[in-house]
Amino acid sequence: MPEANADIGLIGLAVMGQNLVMNMNDHGYTVSVYNRTTEVMEEFVGGTAKDSKVQGFAELKDFVASLKRPRRIMLMVKAGAAVDKVIESLEPYLEEGDIVIDGGNSNYTDSIRRTQELKDKGLRFIGTGVSGGEEGARHGPSIMPGGHPEAWPFVKNILQDISAKVDGVPCCDWVGEDGAGHYVKMVHNGIEYGDMQLIAEAYHLMKDVLGMNAEEMGATFTAWNKGKLDSYLIEITSEIFGVKDDDGEPILEKILDSAGQKGTGKWTSVNALELGIPLTLISEAVFARFLSALKDERVTASQTLKGPDAKANVDKEAFLKDLEDALYGAKITSYAQGYMLFRAAAAEYGWNLNYAGIAQMWRGGCIIRSRFLNDIMEAYNADPELQNLLLAPFFTKAIHDSQAAWRRVVAKAVELGIPTPAMSGALNFYDGYRLERLPANMIQAQRDFFGAHTYERLDKPRGEFFHTNWTGTGGNVTSRTYNA
Amino acid sequence: MPEANADIGLIGLAVMGQNLVMNMNDHGYTVSVYNRTTEVMEEFVGGTAKDSKVQGFAELKDFVASLKRPRRIMLMVKAGAAVDKVIESLEPYLEEGDIVIDGGNSNYTDSIRRTQELKDKGLRFIGTGVSGGEEGARHGPSIMPGGHPEAWPFVKNILQDISAKVDGVPCCDWVGEDGAGHYVKMVHNGIEYGDMQLIAEAYHLMKDVLGMNAEEMGATFTAWNKGKLDSYLIEITSEIFGVKDDDGEPILEKILDSAGQKGTGKWTSVNALELGIPLTLISEAVFARFLSALKDERVTASQTLKGPDAKANVDKEAFLKDLEDALYGAKITSYAQGYMLFRAAAAEYGWNLNYAGIAQMWRGGCIIRSRFLNDIMEAYNADPELQNLLLAPFFTKAIHDSQAAWRRVVAKAVELGIPTPAMSGALNFYDGYRLERLPANMIQAQRDFFGAHTYERLDKPRGEFFHTNWTGTGGNVTSRTYNA
Repeated sequence: MPEANADIGLIGLAVMGQNLVMNMNDHGYTVSVYNRTTEVMEEFVGGTAKDSKVQGFAELKDFVASLKRPRRIMLMVKAGAAVDKVIESLEPYLEEGDIVIDGGNSNYTDSIRRTQELKDKGLRFIGTGVSGGEEGARHGPSIMPGGHPEAWPFVKNILQDISAKVDGVPCCDWVGEDGAGHYVKMVHNGIEYGDMQLIAEAYHLMKDVLGMNAEEMGATFTAWNKGKLDSYLIEITSEIFGVKDDDGEPILEKILDSAGQKGTGKWTSVNALELGIPLTLISEAVFARFLSALKDERVTASQTLKGPDAKANVDKEAFLKDLEDALYGAKITSYAQGYMLFRAAAAEYGWNLNYAGIAQMWRGGCIIRSRFLNDIMEAYNADPELQNLLLAPFFTKAIHDSQAAWRRVVAKAVELGIPTPAMSGALNFYDGYRLERLPANMIQAQRDFFGAHTYERLDKPRGEFFHTNWTGTGGNVTSRTYNA
Repeated sequence: MPEANADIGLIGLAVMGQNLVMNMNDHGYTVSVYNRTTEVMEEFVGGTAKDSKVQGFAELKDFVASLKRPRRIMLMVKAGAAVDKVIESLEPYLEEGDIVIDGGNSNYTDSIRRTQELKDKGLRFIGTGVSGGEEGARHGPSIMPGGHPEAWPFVKNILQDISAKVDGVPCCDWVGEDGAGHYVKMVHNGIEYGDMQLIAEAYHLMKDVLGMNAEEMGATFTAWNKGKLDSYLIEITSEIFGVKDDDGEPILEKILDSAGQKGTGKWTSVNALELGIPLTLISEAVFARFLSALKDERVTASQTLKGPDAKANVDKEAFLKDLEDALYGAKITSYAQGYMLFRAAAAEYGWNLNYAGIAQMWRGGCIIRSRFLNDIMEAYNADPELQNLLLAPFFTKAIHDSQAAWRRVVAKAVELGIPTPAMSGALNFYDGYRLERLPANMIQAQRDFFGAHTYERLDKPRGEFFHTNWTGTGGNVTSRTYNA
């Protein structure tokens, strides 16, 4: 029997798992590791983890026995059935009070279920988002834990120690009960989809409207990264332009334009549809990935379907300045939509979400980290009950300052046939959100016309429903079951 | 015991149910009716159905006993648990081979389940979409039945007799196994959301860009209804403008701009997200309804958030002509997206969908009926394997002829701050679909940069995945579990 000397165990030694282990090791923790394929474990322990305190185990039983109690076991395995399978295989060796931490990109509904299932067995579950990719995992990710609140004190030190720090504050705090941690990570990923799509659109406009080369584009993103768009994604974009293929050409232009995805973006959109929140930017970003993936169809279609003939006559410097504003305005709108979703989720699932805290956790370590999140944190610190991010004075001013440029960019893209689904979708949302009157009265009239759905009136209290006999022939019944 | 003399029974006497009963009666069928609240049944039988062959029953047992065998019982009750409840209450009185027809707006997944559940009990289930609202139900709806194929011959005559006819062809045919009927109805409703949103946007532009009054707008829609936009929804829109409130003012302007919905639109969007299809127009229409429903939030926001100052200087006649083209181009795109979803669903659920047949069923009776659906039917008759509706010569030409005007309308709306989420979203899709190269290579580069997700290359065969060590520091591992 090995001595129970390890502070934490980690299962799943893909790149994220390996890097988290080395990060924990750097912070003085003794980590036991296990991997389904033993060679991967051996390669890691004998390679990257050589000369560390990391202990590898080929047998799950020995792995568990090596852990101090209450045992803390972090899973970095593929989201879905694999998580349940690993938990099931662990259970024979666990004892009351032991803690299982799922650090994968699990669906929050699974984390709600697992918190309850493990609680019923006397075990304590944590579902935590971990963002930051390879580099973040190694040197400090953003960590968003939720689950069984009793487990938090036992994992707080480790998770906060390995997390990123901004101004000395860890990018990790307790998010909430059961699925809240994975939920916040899901929305994080959705926002990441949106931010990436906005950058892709800006790149498309630079390349096809302004005819810029990789070097020029890289320099522009480098400059943007010194201003209001300062963020990890802008930074890596500036670096991507500079990476060359073997032939000395930018590798970016050789990459297939078919975006992959693993599901968290679309989960966010599905959830927004379920909760009735107009999360248009993230959804357009998800759809844009779908469309990109239809590469063969697009190649065929491009032979037949034509765009505008006109070529651009655009002042490059002015357009780039506008483009920065357009990206910023759209980004503000995307985060405002994300926070609308949080408010709806808090009400739906009974979570007490700390809006400022979420922005704080995202300020560092994760893929969407940015200067901008500090502004969001401050907005919610100033007014925790803020109805909408757009109504925080800082962001109201920011979007007012951006909108003229944003409109010019979208109008030009429309004229020239360059798709900007996220930038223009966000602008459409902004123009709808700020209008007291939308044309939905027409939709209500139509619904009442064909389905007797009834409507409310501007000049009557809410909750009073009226039906008009639009054709003068249909009888004056009220709709009871027909749904459209 | 009553004599078993009725051809069919119907449960659920809200307006749709009542009108279907009278429609069946007109076609010579003897119909038994039952309603949970007996007074509703009595009121119907003694009122609207007086002097007809309709027979009312207060007891479910007597209702069932009145039906010829195999019994055909149509449910027009609220979708969801109520359907299961009614089926459960019927089961004690049913015998092998009896047929239950759910004519409500049920979720297709429920119809898949119910087909199997009733089959296991020796019963035969049909889940059928019924569209057309009050008027359609009374005088000829579009009917989209799917379910247990053995049931079809027993209900074919009744359903086709009561359905709408176009050129003598019934707007009702067998759609496919289990959930296919309700699936096609779901997509029908999603398309309906899109068509309605497009009309609402056109109305918004007419009112706020051109300053037109109700009479002028009504006249414009009347004129449009004689051209390529000829459709039921355009027709009722033209009529809506003419309906006056008690004070002689158009009632439309007194209706609250907060659109309701019952779920089928968002189900369509959720399904598109699940199947990976960029169904942007319907989704924007669903989100637009969500946004409209946030009336109080918008009223608050309108005090703070400002739009462009500029007032329009627009040639009215030219803009209206452009607007007709914009609506047409966007509508073509929406149907193209809907058919993309059908192709994906047929593959996913193993249905053999008849694409031309669906357009044929929708040509008459239903809310989205239009001249345009005849063109779609002809496109799929000419080429049943058509990759995309946009590639049918008729529609390629139509969209080429429309796009310049469509771009002018969207650009003007963006400039003036009038939201057109559906019109502009559709244009963005069109511009993406027709491009051989999209900027998704940037997204793939970013994903590989921060998560080692790997990418494919334009100059290599599909299925070969590459990873670049973008920073020169991260080690050369391949992503196995990290998902973003």
